[in-house]
Amino acid sequence: MRLTPSQVARFREDGFLVLPDLFSPREVAVLRAAAQTVFAEESPANVREKLSGEVRTAMGLHLRHDIFARLVRHPRFVEPAMQLLADDRLYVQQVKINTKAAFDGEVWQWHYDFATHHGEDGVPEPLALNLHVFLDDVVEFNGPLYFIPGSHKAGPTPTQLDTTTTSYPLWVVDRDVVAQLAAPRGLFSATGRAGTALIFGDCLVHGSPPNLSPWERRIFSVILNPVANAYTRTQRPDYKHHRDLTPVTPLADDCLLAPPLAAA
Amino acid sequence: MRLTPSQVARFREDGFLVLPDLFSPREVAVLRAAAQTVFAEESPANVREKLSGEVRTAMGLHLRHDIFARLVRHPRFVEPAMQLLADDRLYVQQVKINTKAAFDGEVWQWHYDFATHHGEDGVPEPLALNLHVFLDDVVEFNGPLYFIPGSHKAGPTPTQLDTTTTSYPLWVVDRDVVAQLAAPRGLFSATGRAGTALIFGDCLVHGSPPNLSPWERRIFSVILNPVANAYTRTQRPDYKHHRDLTPVTPLADDCLLAPPLAAA
Repeated sequence: MRLTPSQVARFREDGFLVLPDLFSPREVAVLRAAAQTVFAEESPANVREKLSGEVRTAMGLHLRHDIFARLVRHPRFVEPAMQLLADDRLYVQQVKINTKAAFDGEVWQWHYDFATHHGEDGVPEPLALNLHVFLDDVVEFNGPLYFIPGSHKAGPTPTQLDTTTTSYPLWVVDRDVVAQLAAPRGLFSATGRAGTALIFGDCLVHGSPPNLSPWERRIFSVILNPVANAYTRTQRPDYKHHRDLTPVTPLADDCLLAPPLAAA
Repeated sequence: MRLTPSQVARFREDGFLVLPDLFSPREVAVLRAAAQTVFAEESPANVREKLSGEVRTAMGLHLRHDIFARLVRHPRFVEPAMQLLADDRLYVQQVKINTKAAFDGEVWQWHYDFATHHGEDGVPEPLALNLHVFLDDVVEFNGPLYFIPGSHKAGPTPTQLDTTTTSYPLWVVDRDVVAQLAAPRGLFSATGRAGTALIFGDCLVHGSPPNLSPWERRIFSVILNPVANAYTRTQRPDYKHHRDLTPVTPLADDCLLAPPLAAA
């Protein structure tokens, strides 16, 4: 799969791409079934909400379920990432589902991923790409990602470690910086049907509101980072930044619908 | 001012009406200036946010500022209310600005106003109308009201008193009821430019998300209730349910732009 020149240009300008219906309803059904399995596990890689105890983030998924092992090698993720980075040696840095339970899913404060990747893991440059696929329809009401278009162009901006707002410690962007970054182009709400994909870069400032609606909102995410730009510190658990630097190689386009691996 | 038959029909069907640009930019500027004055006061009628201490709700405003004394008698509010209720003896039950400060404004849980009006104030029937005017542009990102269209038809539904989520104790609707009510028609986000007005009834289920954006969101609200349907209990402070049952009479259409009253 190749992105078109206009998609590449939009990614450079906005800092993100929305790819509606990149995965089919049949593929989404396969992913949802796998999600149910990993959510039911008792695991330190299932981070729970501060208030409700619901799973907020389930991590390390490619090591926990064969379907997610395939998804992180899916050509519709891996090939655009290789194309945008002009690099075919990418490792799987982080693999998760961020869920926002109906009624209970909480806020993600304004942040960009490189603050954590650099500050915690010693990643040198903001090259990593975050690739999402929606496992539920994402609408205005169930906690979509909010992007600040063009905010990646400001580069890494000042952040503070917020350990109190939610259960997940996060390097958050200062409010006056958010106001400045949002002034020229406003905010963008990344909504779409289940199967829609997003690609965004390591300096794009984003956040998301809580889920007040009666509808679940689960989003799968894989972060791919060039092996040449790998972590230099290992203070976080493996499931937050995987140690394995083996470059991913894309599988076949129908890999999610193929029969289970014998070893799985 | 008369609502058209189709507006009346829509109100009966949906439980609310959106009236874009009902107040002009000049009128909105007058209202904003008055809002600044009352927000700066130290008053028990200025309810503050639990976390930030910012003013969440400023109440009793028609007794605190001449401009709001005029606004609660504005013909663009009072005449549609009289028309919808087929009653020209309405008293001013509550007058407030609900603000959601940029970044800090918190959630309003799912509720309908009659639960409080009946349970706390002993109002017999769900007749009161809540009339809003936006003092800021209200968009997806700064905490719009979410309505459940048609939810008023279910009548008063089961509620629980929630004293912990925010600084304002609220009778909230059970989650399973919200899910049922939202199933047929989904949710509606009440957005619009500053000056846009809303009218909604006492059984309409609504809530609103926090304000994650860098933009303020202030909404003025007056509740008008038939004198024949007045409170029967006075346990709440006057600024939460005014005791004065004098029926409102509409002023002139340009009343907000007229010179200050001599007594003001």
